[in-house]
Amino acid sequence: MISQDTIVALATPSGAGAIAVLRISGSNAITIAGGVFTSVSGKDITHQKTHTLHLGHIEDDNKIYDQVLLSIFKGPNSYTGENTVEISCHGSTYIQQQIIQLLLRKGCRMANAGEFTLRAFLNGKLDLSQAEAVADLVASDNEASHQIAMQQMRGGFSNEIARLREELLNFASLIELELDFAEEDVEFADRTQFHELLNRISFVLKRLIDSFAVGNVIKNGIPVAIVGEPNVGKSTLLNALLNEERAIVSDIAGTTRDTIEDELVISGIGFRFIDTAGIRETEDVVESLGIKKTFEKMEQAQVVTYLFDASLFTTHGAGLKTEIEKIKNQFPLKPLVIIGNKADKLTESEKAYALQQIPELLLVSAKENIGVEELKDKLLSFVNTGALRNNETIVTNTRHYDSLLKALEEIQKVQYGLQSSISADLMAIDIRQALYYFGEITGQVTNDELLGNIFANFCIGK
Amino acid sequence: MISQDTIVALATPSGAGAIAVLRISGSNAITIAGGVFTSVSGKDITHQKTHTLHLGHIEDDNKIYDQVLLSIFKGPNSYTGENTVEISCHGSTYIQQQIIQLLLRKGCRMANAGEFTLRAFLNGKLDLSQAEAVADLVASDNEASHQIAMQQMRGGFSNEIARLREELLNFASLIELELDFAEEDVEFADRTQFHELLNRISFVLKRLIDSFAVGNVIKNGIPVAIVGEPNVGKSTLLNALLNEERAIVSDIAGTTRDTIEDELVISGIGFRFIDTAGIRETEDVVESLGIKKTFEKMEQAQVVTYLFDASLFTTHGAGLKTEIEKIKNQFPLKPLVIIGNKADKLTESEKAYALQQIPELLLVSAKENIGVEELKDKLLSFVNTGALRNNETIVTNTRHYDSLLKALEEIQKVQYGLQSSISADLMAIDIRQALYYFGEITGQVTNDELLGNIFANFCIGK
Repeated sequence: MISQDTIVALATPSGAGAIAVLRISGSNAITIAGGVFTSVSGKDITHQKTHTLHLGHIEDDNKIYDQVLLSIFKGPNSYTGENTVEISCHGSTYIQQQIIQLLLRKGCRMANAGEFTLRAFLNGKLDLSQAEAVADLVASDNEASHQIAMQQMRGGFSNEIARLREELLNFASLIELELDFAEEDVEFADRTQFHELLNRISFVLKRLIDSFAVGNVIKNGIPVAIVGEPNVGKSTLLNALLNEERAIVSDIAGTTRDTIEDELVISGIGFRFIDTAGIRETEDVVESLGIKKTFEKMEQAQVVTYLFDASLFTTHGAGLKTEIEKIKNQFPLKPLVIIGNKADKLTESEKAYALQQIPELLLVSAKENIGVEELKDKLLSFVNTGALRNNETIVTNTRHYDSLLKALEEIQKVQYGLQSSISADLMAIDIRQALYYFGEITGQVTNDELLGNIFANFCIGK
Repeated sequence: MISQDTIVALATPSGAGAIAVLRISGSNAITIAGGVFTSVSGKDITHQKTHTLHLGHIEDDNKIYDQVLLSIFKGPNSYTGENTVEISCHGSTYIQQQIIQLLLRKGCRMANAGEFTLRAFLNGKLDLSQAEAVADLVASDNEASHQIAMQQMRGGFSNEIARLREELLNFASLIELELDFAEEDVEFADRTQFHELLNRISFVLKRLIDSFAVGNVIKNGIPVAIVGEPNVGKSTLLNALLNEERAIVSDIAGTTRDTIEDELVISGIGFRFIDTAGIRETEDVVESLGIKKTFEKMEQAQVVTYLFDASLFTTHGAGLKTEIEKIKNQFPLKPLVIIGNKADKLTESEKAYALQQIPELLLVSAKENIGVEELKDKLLSFVNTGALRNNETIVTNTRHYDSLLKALEEIQKVQYGLQSSISADLMAIDIRQALYYFGEITGQVTNDELLGNIFANFCIGK
């Protein structure tokens, strides 16, 4: 599977910038780069130390392509574990392409998506969950997702799995040893200790599996639907939450026909706000379609916020309460936040009346920025950030989640087998299967299809 | 003017990629970076050699920001001439921002546009024309502009100017020496040699000034207007030239109301094609406006191509010839290419007749891709690429062009003074003035406003 050819790709974002970095990796990386590089000091770069930088020109056939800085990394002391050269050239797209084409002519081939990291994995520089964390890290756009990816890349998750796997492997060996002495009816593996280990493993697995709920939320953000009658200030509230003018704010009822998505990070957790058209009864066909869409969006959202114009509560309170009941009946299990906007227009006694009628009501003024912080706190309360705060390992990857679920299932079979004193040979099979799923996470067990799927999601150059 | 504070900026294009590079420059660059960097091998990076690479983590206050590669350059052996650190981090925008913000807290400030190159100039690493070439190089998008920028950055232009300046300076000194001995009426400066030098200088200046025409063309591309009646195939021809479907091609006469610009590189020279509405007589107000615009665009273009439907030549030949005469009368000095399109529909005798009527006619079929290469050759023939082919110094910069013009003017004054035997003190003033303009090009003469104007056009991080 390990290919020894030398690959090249642009590692920095495409487009114009001051500089761009091209990455070359493979056994011939240094010789190929050396063939087109002339150091200003006249050095032969194929004889330079690893981790050194050299100023010079990329040139070939008397044509100078660019003045560049060349970084040399000798395998195994490189990201991929192979000989690696990074060329820092001027940022013109034209120059980048010219140099890449030159390198292709000199024997490199274009790297596939994630191929540098795939090679790092295949060369044992990273385990599979660490390699996956690299892609997460590049994609991270807030504190929490960054922190988790960083922890995973540094091996936090793999280490925990690897420790458990090793302990389990010890017991597996002992139990398999018993099989060799089956006729003598000996027990090398202490059943009490084994019972304890299985409890510990299933406890850890359950915790990791549970962490996926928050992990998934951190990775993808929480979808929050903002629902309400037209002209109650949904866009203004969205803007107050986002603190900038992204949605179109207008006084004309029914302006927001399409759903607008925008993301806000509160205490490191991403919330994706979905601004929807209202749900009032209407004869208008276009509005009706909007309302259908609103219900669909509410279905997809993890939290629904219902917004109304609090200044109309005295006169329209009964209708609003019916609407709220409608949503509660439609989505009984979904967290619902009821917000009375334009609270700045209310007298104290009007406020007291509204709160008496709807005790869970949050009175805000999006325009005057009153109550917006309370709303943020309320939203945050739906996320159990305990694990995040305690710096615990959090699972964010669906693939890991699946393997953990399967591993737990096998462990539970082993636990059951231990209780019902099944034969060691049957138990050994279940233990091996659990070990297999552990190995899937860190990549000790793998296959081409799995690797293909994982690395296809990487960008080229990583 | 030289500020000793330490600056930081993103040097790679913004947006997501596998990696991003942050550049720090200034006397404290290494100490500031060292304060937030932990090498995996435990090395103190403030004690490492120049031009070395180090793997480690950016961390502060027990928070790990990223795993990075750190490049160390010790002044004066760096791009800016100052201590410089480059941090190659993961490409997430979030991570880039977090690290930049950390560095700002630790005492860096955000770099201004072009400030790294400005410092390189101020520290004598580049002269001014070389610094300007850096921006040209980053902006270069074709062979010719890249080649010229590369030559200029490597000092081709500056060297020629500097050599002439030095020779002139020698004579200036001798002539000024004569002033000290004015009463003795001696001539230290050999007038014949001086005369020869002035001739040589004005020859070089004229050549450089002339090269600006091609230099400008190479830098900005040649605007070519494609003019003709509606439905003669302008968009199809444009597409045939561009070899892809960029303009809207349709059979409805008058589709192309707006002008569409597109660029094509032929043998390294950029041509900007301007597709315009036709110029037929019309009652339609919108069409009339289009025709007015067409004449404006013809005025701006350096080359005009007039396109007609060759299959109509037998019946409409007289009218077409009148139109062509109209354009020739309007723009007598502008190169005009007359193209008969849809030549595939013509019999051989029809072709012969058309060519007899309009000898300079180019018969093409944009649809069948016949004659398109000949058209490209024709367009290329308007550019004098001799200087480019002979690898001569070409001036592409308006600022240089202006200084060269002024220098030539002063040199011509000196030549005139020499012929009319004016006094050495008056001649010395003109020579000094010529030297001043030479110095402006390379930056030996400069001021804050000039530098401000030049470097404001750079991108941040360069």
